[in-house]
Formats: sequence, C-alpha cells, structure tokens
Amino acid sequence: MDRFKLFKALKRDEGGKMLMLVMDGLGGLPNEPGGKTALETAATPNLDALAADSICGLHMPCGPGITPGSGPAHLGIFGYDPFEYNIGRGVLEALGIDFPLQDGDLAIRINFCTLDDEGLVADRRAGRIATDINAALCEKLRAITLEDVELFVEPVKEHRAAAVLRGPGLHAEGGLNDSDPQVTGKAPLEIKAAEPKAERAAALCNEFAAKAREILKDDHPANMTLLRGIDRFEMLPDFTDVFGPKAAAIATYPMYRGLARLVGMAVLETGETIESEIDTLRENLDGCDFFYVHVKKTDSYGEDGNFGSRVHVMEETDALIPAVREMGFDVIAVTGDHSTPAVMKSHSWHTVPTLLWSALCRPDDVSAFGEMACNHGGLGVFPAMDLLPWMLANAEWLQKYGA
Amino acid sequence: MDRFKLFKALKRDEGGKMLMLVMDGLGGLPNEPGGKTALETAATPNLDALAADSICGLHMPCGPGITPGSGPAHLGIFGYDPFEYNIGRGVLEALGIDFPLQDGDLAIRINFCTLDDEGLVADRRAGRIATDINAALCEKLRAITLEDVELFVEPVKEHRAAAVLRGPGLHAEGGLNDSDPQVTGKAPLEIKAAEPKAERAAALCNEFAAKAREILKDDHPANMTLLRGIDRFEMLPDFTDVFGPKAAAIATYPMYRGLARLVGMAVLETGETIESEIDTLRENLDGCDFFYVHVKKTDSYGEDGNFGSRVHVMEETDALIPAVREMGFDVIAVTGDHSTPAVMKSHSWHTVPTLLWSALCRPDDVSAFGEMACNHGGLGVFPAMDLLPWMLANAEWLQKYGA
Repeated sequence: MDRFKLFKALKRDEGGKMLMLVMDGLGGLPNEPGGKTALETAATPNLDALAADSICGLHMPCGPGITPGSGPAHLGIFGYDPFEYNIGRGVLEALGIDFPLQDGDLAIRINFCTLDDEGLVADRRAGRIATDINAALCEKLRAITLEDVELFVEPVKEHRAAAVLRGPGLHAEGGLNDSDPQVTGKAPLEIKAAEPKAERAAALCNEFAAKAREILKDDHPANMTLLRGIDRFEMLPDFTDVFGPKAAAIATYPMYRGLARLVGMAVLETGETIESEIDTLRENLDGCDFFYVHVKKTDSYGEDGNFGSRVHVMEETDALIPAVREMGFDVIAVTGDHSTPAVMKSHSWHTVPTLLWSALCRPDDVSAFGEMACNHGGLGVFPAMDLLPWMLANAEWLQKYGA
Repeated sequence: MDRFKLFKALKRDEGGKMLMLVMDGLGGLPNEPGGKTALETAATPNLDALAADSICGLHMPCGPGITPGSGPAHLGIFGYDPFEYNIGRGVLEALGIDFPLQDGDLAIRINFCTLDDEGLVADRRAGRIATDINAALCEKLRAITLEDVELFVEPVKEHRAAAVLRGPGLHAEGGLNDSDPQVTGKAPLEIKAAEPKAERAAALCNEFAAKAREILKDDHPANMTLLRGIDRFEMLPDFTDVFGPKAAAIATYPMYRGLARLVGMAVLETGETIESEIDTLRENLDGCDFFYVHVKKTDSYGEDGNFGSRVHVMEETDALIPAVREMGFDVIAVTGDHSTPAVMKSHSWHTVPTLLWSALCRPDDVSAFGEMACNHGGLGVFPAMDLLPWMLANAEWLQKYGA
C-alpha cells in the first residue's frame, strides 16, 4: 500500500481543528532503579485529567530499538515514514540556523580545522574558535566563486558553519563522502561521488575546499575547512496536499521550524517561552486546521542529565493545559518526538507517552500521563507515524475506505 | 514476505474445526461521555465466560485511523490484505443482490435519473421511483444488445439497479469514470478509460448508456441511466487454496454471502434470524472446517443511531453462545468487521473487540467481552488480517516454519 496515495484519496476538504503538542524527548527512564521517570515524577494534574478523557499509548519513534535524531523523530510524528524520507545532516544544520533552503540546494556542514605545515589535520575543530571569529571567516569565504552556482556561507557556533550551494544539477544520489578524515595526522579527503550523477556536486565541493584553503591560509588555527554531511535538500510531499489540513508550527528553536517548513507547514512567529508559544497558538487559531507546538527544554535538560529541570519543564507545560483546552480544539494530542532519559544524557530508543483526546476517541482506563500508565492505553505500542492518521480520523478529516 | 506464499507453504491437509462469529459493526463508543459502549452495556454472560477462557484483543480493520467499507473490513478478517485486494462499488452492488458474478465480468451500478428537455440531469435519482417500476425498466433494458457481450440488468431498490457485462476483454485497469456528473444541470458524462486496456469497456458502457436513453425516452421521470462504480470482477485467491480449510458462510444478507463467495467460500442457505443461522451451522458441521457466521443488525442499528437495539442484538447473540459451544469447535473467534458507534451513525475507524477461544489459546486475564476489557488482552491491538492466522494456528492447520 502506498500510504500517501491512500491519504490523498481519503482526505476531506474540511474537518476539525487539531493540536499536536510535542514535548521534545518526553519519554524517559527512572533516575535510579525502581524510581519514577521525569514525567511520572512531575506533578501534572492537568495532563492527568486530559489523559483520563483520552485514549493513550506509547509510540515507537522509528522502530524497535532505533534511537532517532531530531529529523526522523519529527518526520514520524508528522506522519512521514522516517526511513523513506531521509534528511541529511547538512540540511539539518542549515534548517537549524533558519536558513531558507530551496528545493535542489546542496547543504554542507563545515568544521573549521587546523592544518599543520605538511597539510595534515592537526585539530579537527581548530581549537573551538569563538563564534565571532567564525563569523568573520565565513564573510571571507563568501568571496569564493563557483561556476553557475550561488554560494552561501553562514556561521553556526564555535568551529561549526554551514554552506549552501544553489544552482542547477546539484545531485547527491548515492551520497558524497565527508572530507573530514575523522582523525588527526591525515590530510583532508577528496570528496568523491558514489554515482556519476553526483560528480558535479563532488567537483564543486572540492573546488570550494581548495579555494577556502587558499583564502584561510593565514588564519591559523582556522586555516582550513572540513566538509561534512553533504546532501541535497528536497521538499518533502506537502502536508496539506497529502493529509488535507492546513498546518502551522510554533517552535522556539530554528531547527524545529525548519523541520516543519520541510513538510510545508506555515511557521508562526513566537517568543522564547512556552507561555509565549501558547499565546501565539491562541492568536492564530483561525488561520489553520492543524497546529504543531514544540517544547524544547524537556530534551535539552535530558541531554544535560538534569532530571530535576526536566521535571520542572513538564510541570510548566502542564500548567498551560487548561488554557489550551479552552481554545476549542476538536483533537488534542500530547506526545514527544523521542525519549531523552536524563540518566543517559542522550536521545534513546524508548517508547514515548502519548495521549489523544477528542469527543470520539473512545477513552481507555488510563488516568495519569506517564510511561507506565500509557502502557495500558487503547493505542497500545504503535509506530509514531500512525499518530497523525489517528488524529485525522478523530477530527473527521478522512473518508471511508472502500464500499 | 509474501504472506499467501507463506501460508500455502505451511498449510496442512487437516486440522481442527473453526468458527468465526462476526457481529457486524461490533465496536462502538459510549453513547454519552463517561458511559459504556453497546457491548459493555449489553448483558452478555455467555460471551463474558467465553472471553475468560479466551485470549482477547482489539483489531484494526484496515489500519490506523481508516474507516472501512464492508468489503475491505470483511477481507481483513478473512485474512486478505484489504489494500492489496480492492472491491469496486459496482461489484459490491452485484454481490449485494446475490448476482452470481463470474471472473472477468464488468459490474456497474445504475441510478435511474431524470433528464430535462435539453438533456441535462434534472434529478439524479429520478424522484426515487418505486422498486417495481425499477424492475419493469430493467426488463426493458435487457433488450439492449452489445457485440460479443452478454448483458444482465437487475433492479436493486428505488432508483438503484445493477448491470453486468460478460464477455472477453472487459478490462478496467486504471479505472473508468462515472457518467454521473454528481450535480444537476449538467449532461451525463462520457465514460473514459484511464488506460488503453480499458477502452473497450468504456466504449461498451457508453453504447449501453446511449441505447438505454433511447429505450427510456418516454419513461419520465426515469428517462435515463447514470452509470457508476464500474469495475471488473476478479475472483480473489481461493481461501482453501491459500489457507487450507474448506470454508462455508452463513449470512442473512446477500452482500456478505457475496463477499464470502469472492474468496471461494461455500454459501449455506439459512433463514432470516440469528437463531436460524445457528441452526444452519449445527446442521452443516460435518461439511466444512471453517465457518463464517454473520450477524447483520448490530451494524444496521448502529447506522440508525439506535443504541438500545444494538445492545439487544448483542444480547440475543449472547444467548446462542452456549448452543455454539456445544457443537464441539476446536476454535471459536468472536469479533466484528469494524465499528459502528450508534453515536456516529456510521462505520468508524475504532478498533474491534475480539476473542479467540481454543484449548491452546493461552487465556489472558480478560474476563468480560467489551472494548475496555479487550484492551488488556493477550492479542493486543492488532491488524484484522492477523486474526485468521491466529485461528489457523490454534486449530493446528499450520506447520512449523523452518527447521
């Protein structure tokens, strides 16, 4: 079955209003054996009450045992098969600085690095130069000219930057290797195309690297660039075209706005706090059918190993639920994109607590929002990309299949 | 994995006797928030006792969020992938009047309609003419001759009829559009083939429509036909050939007998009541290995929004369970094809309570037959087409896979 063909055939022109509230890295582990997870520890009376009226479950972000990056984890909850649609690291880096990528762009991650007198890599991160030095070097690199190609170079942070090549025929089929040799004491690698179609892109990357070396030769320790995660950016099938609803994203971090743009969602301007995101939601209710709201810090604190602050962000989000319920959504889903247990200080493969509320949801007997409780829910343990179809059904956006 | 190839390889020549008792549209929703579903409301002591000895669960008829028509919903519980095997609306209409379709037939739904003096559709349903007038018009249309094709025209109800074209080369690959313009004030559409292979079928349909117009010109308000849901009928892979057991169907409504015939099941004559169906089952026990028994009215009352009568039919079915258990089946499954919540007055996407009883089923701790209870069962939430394999295994119709 071609899922997207099916949804295109079944989608209606109208339906109910939906909210997907995503707490990044929501799933967790007990911080000590026998303890509770962050979500189970947090006092979340409003989410618990919502769970009691909802059908609950645990989603698998990509599949059994697979720890997802932010890209595939988000594609899953947006209803896209994270194995069919792959987002290159270069593309994700560009999305992460709000760079307005266009269909067909070649996106590249750059590490400024140090070459020794023999041209071997002495430091793959150029001593983690300050971001303002990085910005000045990027400005220099913008002088590079490549035939038939528009070049963009943008600083990211410390030694990390992003380059985008725009022009016809920048293919990356089969993949392009990194020029980063991964170890010191070796020369930067020549970039090669795995398939003939990508040879032009490889040649342009090598030309960029050679010209950057010439420009940076006196900028020790940042006297060279290593090119990584080279990938062509292609717009994914449009969310509205596939599923029906007009969709908008509210996120404080650029990468998540970028992921939403990638599937054609509108991106709404918002502030720095969860509260400002909820205000933005309220102010824009009339414009769209589907809203994706992203809470970042549940994940950031997980990556830091900060269990207590993770709990606090969950409680802060919980306090805003009554205001959200007053907005009159027909369907509300609360979930995460993946798990980020503080005890692991990283993303993990664990399933993610999920609740789906609507007047038609058929509530189960789960009355608390947490990992152990959701395990008894009516959605069971399910693939992340099935969440959106359940939401669409509950909001009556889908017609009957077959007679 | 090619599922059918697998089952063909694993099937045994013999095994236990199986019953699949299907209450149409069994799954439901509480009629008021916080209430119970019809099945949870019904007093079903016998089904509850059977559930206590069974392994239980909830099946997804087609997939997450998908509301199935009767065709795909039944194919699923018969073990067929409802997305791989698609049944056209014309075919379903012909099955619904017990028309003995043959492999390669072209099946067409007909609406008698009214054309105005300019040849535009004035009423798409010809004022819902009486069924006996419809029958007389069908008799007239049987005079139409089409080269190399045998024509059948049968009344269905009010303005609805069915036509079947039988002959070589009636292909419908890629689909044929309806001649129904869907709105009044437009002329009937020419039928076109999406692919060259179906052009002959399209031409014959247009010829039929033109000749019908001539024949009906003085039969205002039913002075024309609109052709809809044109599709080629093809027998599906034979149930016995794929899975092993000889199968028979007992159903009071023609469409369900037709769906069973489509997969090669024998159809047993029965009466109008559930009790007569159970009598038919008892009388035919020796002839087959697998019996499909269909209870219609749980769905009909759901479509009517009649919660109370839905409950009553469930209780009526429950009362016959002791008699069924005395028949000595090795495996009994009780399920529905989909959900039909009275509160929605329609089919829905909700999961369907299912119990599977056998001496080998490994009972779970579910001791009542209902949506909430089955949610805690050992089968979990599972695709409908997995039910039949679980039944076959419990009846020992499948050999070991691999050494």
